[in-house]
Parts: sequence; C-alpha cells; structure tokens
Amino acid sequence: MVILGIDPGYATVGYGVLEYKNGRFRVMDYGAVTTPAGVDFPSRLQMIYEGITELCERFHPDCMSVEELFFNTNITTGIQVGHARGVILLAAKMKGVPSFEYTPLQVKQSVVGYGRAEKHQVMEMTRQLLHLERIPRPDDAADALALAICHAHSSKSNLLGLKI
Amino acid sequence: MVILGIDPGYATVGYGVLEYKNGRFRVMDYGAVTTPAGVDFPSRLQMIYEGITELCERFHPDCMSVEELFFNTNITTGIQVGHARGVILLAAKMKGVPSFEYTPLQVKQSVVGYGRAEKHQVMEMTRQLLHLERIPRPDDAADALALAICHAHSSKSNLLGLKI
Repeated sequence: MVILGIDPGYATVGYGVLEYKNGRFRVMDYGAVTTPAGVDFPSRLQMIYEGITELCERFHPDCMSVEELFFNTNITTGIQVGHARGVILLAAKMKGVPSFEYTPLQVKQSVVGYGRAEKHQVMEMTRQLLHLERIPRPDDAADALALAICHAHSSKSNLLGLKI
Repeated sequence: MVILGIDPGYATVGYGVLEYKNGRFRVMDYGAVTTPAGVDFPSRLQMIYEGITELCERFHPDCMSVEELFFNTNITTGIQVGHARGVILLAAKMKGVPSFEYTPLQVKQSVVGYGRAEKHQVMEMTRQLLHLERIPRPDDAADALALAICHAHSSKSNLLGLKI
C-alpha cells in the first residue's frame, strides 16, 4: 500500500510518501509544496492543486492521509488553511485517491503511543520507524510522514481513520 | 462587462451572472450549485468545482465577485466553507477569471447605500436594480446577485474591490 501523508497549509504543504508492506515502511519521497507570499491567493491555490496532482501522478498512492483542522487561536489563518485543504482534497479526489483524516492526538498516539507526546518525540519516532539518519526537513514533511505512518498503523489494526 | 457573483458555501453555492453596460444591468442567469448532505466531502468539493467551471465556460465572465469570509460564531462551519471557497477560487483561476472579494458591509453599502441595512432591504434593492418581478430564490442566489452589483458599482467609481 502506498500512502500519501499531507500536512496542509497555504504557504507550505508538507508531504510524505510511504510504501507499507508486510509491516515494513519504505520511504518513497518527502518534502513540501511551497507557495511564495507575494503571489495572489488564487495562484497559490493553483500551485498547491498542481503540486498534489503531480504527487498523485508520480506515486499513484492508494490513499491520502491528511490532518484534520482544528483552530482555537487564529480564525483567519484557519479559514485560509481551509481554502488550501479544500484544494488538496479536490486534487486527490480528481485523481481517484480516497482521503482519510486524523487528529493530532491520533497521530501522536499512533506514532509515539502516547496522545500527549511532544512534537520532537513524534519527529524522533518518525525518524526511527522509517530508519532515517536524520529527522526529515522541513517540519511539515516530518508531520506528513507521521500522518502516513498513522494511517498505516490504523489500517493494520483495522481501526480505520475517518474517511472524509 | 460580465460579472459572476458568488455566495460561497459547501451545501449551497449561490451564483448570479450580470452583464453591466452603460450603467445598466442585464440578468444573464442566477441560481445555486447544491451538493447533497449524504455525499462524502471531497465529492461535494468536486461538484462545486465542476459547477463553477461550467458557469465560467458558459458565460465567460470578466471577473468573479465573491464574499469575504468572516466567522465569529461556528469555527467548524467556517473552515468547511473555507474548503469550498478555496475550490471556487481555484475553478475561476483555472479559467483565467480574476476574483475580487467584498465584505457584507461593502455589499450593503453598495446596493442599499447603508452599511447596516437589513437582509431584506438588500434583497429588495437587488430586485429593483435588476428590474425583476420577484426577489430571486434561493437567498444565496439573491446574495450572489448583490455581490455582482457591488463589483459593478465598485468598478464604475474606480473604487475597485480587493483583488484576491
């Protein structure tokens, strides 16, 4: 199973592509789709749409695992990330890739085994589980890989994440 | 100038298409793109994307006028509408249609001449300005027509709305 993990945003969309087979992970790619601040918002949405489309065409993922949005702090940022996330879900849908969503709590529980784990613990466990020498950069890519791991673990245990 | 007015939403996207020429309006079409509640969210986003794309192909608007999102009440709804609005902006961008956004205050000021006007006053003035027999239905379509009027007035006075 090939899983595309996505950490949504409008300036930086982290992604991580994992193959999960016989209980083992193989890292296929990770990185970020970035959009420059000086560009108009619809153009940034287009860059994100095209970036996700390209990832789907290159890796033919069986599913996308994407973070659920929670906003308690900045509503304006939340709405802007919502715009980007809408475009991300659309891109996957247009390529026939089903989407699953997980809360940060579910990701922590799945990767570290503890829902209140610190961010650096999640990153370190992600590194170990994927047998990487260093913690992936940028942070958004590490978060995306953790989301992909979370979906793999969730599928394994038949505790399927919420299909969006 | 042909203006596509849009009242964003994920269950109902109101639209209104106006031609504005020599200070006069001609209603080309209005209505709503609706998505059923029972369908998964990415499919609803796809329906919205395809609905807006079709409107752009049918009417070749010179611009889209879309409501700015404000959410003080329900953040979850706000984020979901944000998803839909992202897809709407993307669809217009993909068809080369530039987007402009206006606040509810700007729309009221432009259509009624008074920023604190009631909703029914905006609808009645929209009906009068467009020489319609009845107030357009659904409400989302009437709101979308008001947004198109707002952009026409704004362009006329060179007080251009905020290009997104």
